[in-house]
Amino acid sequence: MSVVTIVGSGMMGSALAFPAAENGHEVRLCGTPLDREIIDTCRKTGRHPKFERDFPAGVKYYRIEEVDEALCGADMVIGGVSSFGVDWFGEEILPRIPEDTPILTVTKGLMDTPEGKLITYPDLWRARLAEKGLRRCLNAVGGPCTSYELVFHDQTEVAFCGDDIEILARLKAIMETDYYHISITTDVTGIESAVALKNGYALAIALTVGLNQREHGVDSVQHFNSQAAVFGQSVKEMAKLLEYQGAPGLNNLCVGAGDLYVTVYGGRTRLVGILLGRGLTIAEAKEELSGVTLESLVVAERVARAVRAAAARGVLDPADFPLMMHVDDIITRTAPVEIPWDAFTYREG
Amino acid sequence: MSVVTIVGSGMMGSALAFPAAENGHEVRLCGTPLDREIIDTCRKTGRHPKFERDFPAGVKYYRIEEVDEALCGADMVIGGVSSFGVDWFGEEILPRIPEDTPILTVTKGLMDTPEGKLITYPDLWRARLAEKGLRRCLNAVGGPCTSYELVFHDQTEVAFCGDDIEILARLKAIMETDYYHISITTDVTGIESAVALKNGYALAIALTVGLNQREHGVDSVQHFNSQAAVFGQSVKEMAKLLEYQGAPGLNNLCVGAGDLYVTVYGGRTRLVGILLGRGLTIAEAKEELSGVTLESLVVAERVARAVRAAAARGVLDPADFPLMMHVDDIITRTAPVEIPWDAFTYREG
Repeated sequence: MSVVTIVGSGMMGSALAFPAAENGHEVRLCGTPLDREIIDTCRKTGRHPKFERDFPAGVKYYRIEEVDEALCGADMVIGGVSSFGVDWFGEEILPRIPEDTPILTVTKGLMDTPEGKLITYPDLWRARLAEKGLRRCLNAVGGPCTSYELVFHDQTEVAFCGDDIEILARLKAIMETDYYHISITTDVTGIESAVALKNGYALAIALTVGLNQREHGVDSVQHFNSQAAVFGQSVKEMAKLLEYQGAPGLNNLCVGAGDLYVTVYGGRTRLVGILLGRGLTIAEAKEELSGVTLESLVVAERVARAVRAAAARGVLDPADFPLMMHVDDIITRTAPVEIPWDAFTYREG
Repeated sequence: MSVVTIVGSGMMGSALAFPAAENGHEVRLCGTPLDREIIDTCRKTGRHPKFERDFPAGVKYYRIEEVDEALCGADMVIGGVSSFGVDWFGEEILPRIPEDTPILTVTKGLMDTPEGKLITYPDLWRARLAEKGLRRCLNAVGGPCTSYELVFHDQTEVAFCGDDIEILARLKAIMETDYYHISITTDVTGIESAVALKNGYALAIALTVGLNQREHGVDSVQHFNSQAAVFGQSVKEMAKLLEYQGAPGLNNLCVGAGDLYVTVYGGRTRLVGILLGRGLTIAEAKEELSGVTLESLVVAERVARAVRAAAARGVLDPADFPLMMHVDDIITRTAPVEIPWDAFTYREG
């Protein structure tokens, strides 16, 4: 039996308590300073307020003040914060974890640099820790997995990535179940880039849903030709960005394509895309969704900025990314949604 | 103005009458011997019995006995038969078309050989014509396009493929509209393989829908983790099969991925996959769907057989295609649906 400590009681971090606890491990779920109510609810009811199933018996709940107790003796720490908690997790939590304790983070995103590089969060944390003379055993999980379906035991395939394949094999052994299937890979940049990029592209696909609603009514049937056209273009642009990231492997692209598929079907990213497609401005869409985190907007803006910066260095051509450029125009320049359909066509031969 | 003759008044062939006629061309829609009632209905009502919109004004309808009249002076012939009409189209129609008249076929499929090669229909027809000392200008269209959404003017991206890029450019000029966007490529094997393979894989994804219905009830909500897991694996296996076909280009894979996305959402392929996933045998599923054509079953069986034959030559490894092999086991060996989830995981690094 291992001790698995989860820091951050958002939906994804909390969902990972299920396979871990069902495998017989001691699971400690610790909230962030923003998760106080969630932890109180879990203690009272044994259930996460956003889930429809109770936690497995034995899961223990900790407030942030008790984080050191939660971390004490942990064999594995799961970082369950969203991309908006990256700084906090890096400053407040990572330094508290022993150097050789494997950490697995669910946080999705990329940071861009002025030169147009796109940095994964494990790399970002590593650099910040190095400034303090610290090293941590950073790993991450990506792939098509919605938290509530994982809780529901829907069959799920993900990839764990990190620098040491043997450590990844240990983490896999702790977490895998008959419904949670885990690939392991040392291509951290590939997995982390793919699963961050997919947020921006899922928003792009959802635009077409909104466009159809604008034309035919909010209750009209969905149309899939246009969704599929943007889906195909998304996979193409993701492949080119993965190549730019030095991570052209087919496995990365397929994790990203699967994750894109699942992300189109649910949640906030779909919602904001639909609202924009219906004709709302980005400000109106944000107001409509007040209070929800919109990682897709952040990643799209950063990726587009990186493409432009790389283009200024002659390394990328924005014409290869007409979809992402248009999404960025919509969200940062209040351009109307006019998907550049003809720019997706090619002539080859 | 050009004359566009469509032979075969199934849904896809008939749908192409819309962009052609809206562009001001003379469109002649000719039924096969099986399409007699469709043509009679079109003549009476101006509408295809399966569409919810009238044909554009001016479309002319022909019975098979009038096919030579329909073909006379055509600038472009669209072959609108399903894969079950391949022989008929090759024997009865292709020889009637002048050598330099461009033909664009919508037929999707692959034929396997005893050595495990997978032959596209344009190549098949070319070989059969050559036996008679004939040559025809064969081109094809593939990509994510459901006929009823094309008729509805949903934004649609497809690829025309053929040997001569200038002829493809002419066909594109005839057919493209502000909702029908056309790539052109000389990679016939790539496009034709991608859009045939997607039928087999769409069935595989639909299995997960049926599995969930079996476990949670026919009216239960859909689950996307498992769909997405199979989607990602499908893209991976398609990429490997495209490489085997000598057509590894990213454009091919993205046309296939988009087409896979749209195919999961509709029609007979989805339906048969769901029925199998619910636990019906292949015989029961076929009975349930009596009378509908099941191209997905045909292509899955042929591709799996080709993989096995190629494996016998040491060229492919069936372990790289666990999903397609399982689909084949279900449909040709009455194996129960037990998706090999762990076979989809990988270890890399």
